Amino acid sequence: MKIDDNFFMKLAIDEAWKYQLLTYPNPAVGCVVVKNGEILAIEAHKTAGEAHAEVNALKAAFLKKNPNDLLKLKKTSDEIHQYLIKNHNNFFTDCIVYVTLEPCNHIGKTPACSNLLKELKPKRVVIAHKDTNKEASGGIETLKNANIDVSLGCMQKEAYDLLYPFIKWTESTFVFFKMAMTLNGSIDGKISSNQTLAYTHTLRDKIDLMLIGGNTVRTDRPTLDARYIAGRSPNIMIYSKNKIFDNNIPLFKIPNRDVFISDDLFKLLDYKFVMVEGTYNLMNILKQRIDFVVLLVNPKIRKGLNAVNEIDIDFEILHENFIGSEKVIYLRKKD
Amino acid sequence: MKIDDNFFMKLAIDEAWKYQLLTYPNPAVGCVVVKNGEILAIEAHKTAGEAHAEVNALKAAFLKKNPNDLLKLKKTSDEIHQYLIKNHNNFFTDCIVYVTLEPCNHIGKTPACSNLLKELKPKRVVIAHKDTNKEASGGIETLKNANIDVSLGCMQKEAYDLLYPFIKWTESTFVFFKMAMTLNGSIDGKISSNQTLAYTHTLRDKIDLMLIGGNTVRTDRPTLDARYIAGRSPNIMIYSKNKIFDNNIPLFKIPNRDVFISDDLFKLLDYKFVMVEGTYNLMNILKQRIDFVVLLVNPKIRKGLNAVNEIDIDFEILHENFIGSEKVIYLRKKD
Ligand SMILES: [Zn+2]
Ligand SMILES: [Zn+2]
Repeated sequence: MKIDDNFFMKLAIDEAWKYQLLTYPNPAVGCVVVKNGEILAIEAHKTAGEAHAEVNALKAAFLKKNPNDLLKLKKTSDEIHQYLIKNHNNFFTDCIVYVTLEPCNHIGKTPACSNLLKELKPKRVVIAHKDTNKEASGGIETLKNANIDVSLGCMQKEAYDLLYPFIKWTESTFVFFKMAMTLNGSIDGKISSNQTLAYTHTLRDKIDLMLIGGNTVRTDRPTLDARYIAGRSPNIMIYSKNKIFDNNIPLFKIPNRDVFISDDLFKLLDYKFVMVEGTYNLMNILKQRIDFVVLLVNPKIRKGLNAVNEIDIDFEILHENFIGSEKVIYLRKKD
Repeated sequence: MKIDDNFFMKLAIDEAWKYQLLTYPNPAVGCVVVKNGEILAIEAHKTAGEAHAEVNALKAAFLKKNPNDLLKLKKTSDEIHQYLIKNHNNFFTDCIVYVTLEPCNHIGKTPACSNLLKELKPKRVVIAHKDTNKEASGGIETLKNANIDVSLGCMQKEAYDLLYPFIKWTESTFVFFKMAMTLNGSIDGKISSNQTLAYTHTLRDKIDLMLIGGNTVRTDRPTLDARYIAGRSPNIMIYSKNKIFDNNIPLFKIPNRDVFISDDLFKLLDYKFVMVEGTYNLMNILKQRIDFVVLLVNPKIRKGLNAVNEIDIDFEILHENFIGSEKVIYLRKKD
């Protein structure tokens, strides 16, 4: 196997995927720091408000070689920025920094990564994808103006796939369909382990809106909260022509959440980050509006309900992660 | 992410899985060489008779730093062994070698890897799993006697999974069930791309015996050769109580292959490496005898035949590779 820029960038991309969708409204970003050929850090941005991927990676890289440095006490992005700028002692001048997205150039909730890199002066910064967000872009220019060697476009396609949800929720609306199934495609009964359910609840905690089919609500009488992670219960749109539901269905009883019933899918466009939970029927109806399918697969074979309708979709597998012994597969519909 | 022994060993394991089942009768083995923290090589054993993983990795590592060395002209395992022993010039003394299986200690088709390592004297050899083959074992002792620091047991579980087919076909018989399906578990019609069919034909070229159900033979009238890779047509056992078949079915017309019809599954024990091609029915019958399921998944949703019987199996996902845009998933039945 070739150990080249693509190899290191792939490590950054894979690390970032571990936090895909969980960084909302920020993009999922990964960063790798290599010093004289040695990988010092593989890190990612984990959640909005916390340090960016570059900051996490630069900190981890410095600590890998200076494990007892005071830097380890610095937790916030601001503190790490300031500390590294004062104390880097040219540690990074023989480093190559791989980052899946152009370093941010504006001071938002955290200081700009392009400025940090400018001060630390790594010998090269390899960037997979340009920033598509006008407000944050300009990082490459900042680096080049500081005479840092910048390479753009390494693994750009893979970085685009990683960035795709961010592009969609920034421009308009990102809609993903979450579904759990057995290896052979059975979707009824309790499919997922508690660990995988906790992942679903983590997603519910992040989204702006959950869309669910009226039949599912009537049949399953769900709660649709995020209790496995003590998270926020999402607002809910029930997709149904018939507006009459039993008010005792648990999802209606959750405080501090909005629930509305509608069959107007244009309502989704009022939200940035929408999760759909449902069956193949709802998938068929939403076919043209789904950006990702997030498929949770438990590797067992069971008799059960399956694709009983005439749905016909081709996907591209963008990424897969393990959740314990189960898989989460991120799929995008092929055009 | 921690960059430690496990990290490097995982790279070796993943590389080896690319050639899983294709190294028969040898084990799939991966090897990584790290010099002063820098990854110089990630290599694997690719096919029986060719160089072992260690030899491929040591060669690639040396060439990474000496790209114009005459070593690049050495192709056979023997030549590489001899050349490295003469010309290593202490290149490896600051290297750590990660290998998924204890280096071989006997001179078989290729010279012993333990002897090569003994001469090159890396500062440490990290081994995931002991050799289970008595004839080849003793590598660790050879290394220790040469005062090389040996660590055993890093990622042992993952290395065991990788080694599992080898253990089975060495001790008795390794049986895997190959099946292709869509994302939602439909199994009829042409599922796989030509690239994935070529992979199936590569497997057919390696096995000792293919087992196929009588109904499949009668209905599909298959050829069951390895024409996509111009490979060897496997010998075939047709599992059927009824011994009468139309002799014009193409599989009977292939020269230099044995075909027999039987419903005695104990016959499988006369072979070391058996592939089963079939549907859920045959999987159900063979449930207790299948070591792996090799599942080829095309990421599309299609209406189609599915799990119509009462089969009920839990699997562990051991590994997955991409074949183009499709996946091959290696599953082992849970006890
Ligand atoms: Zn940033
Ligand atoms: Zn060997």
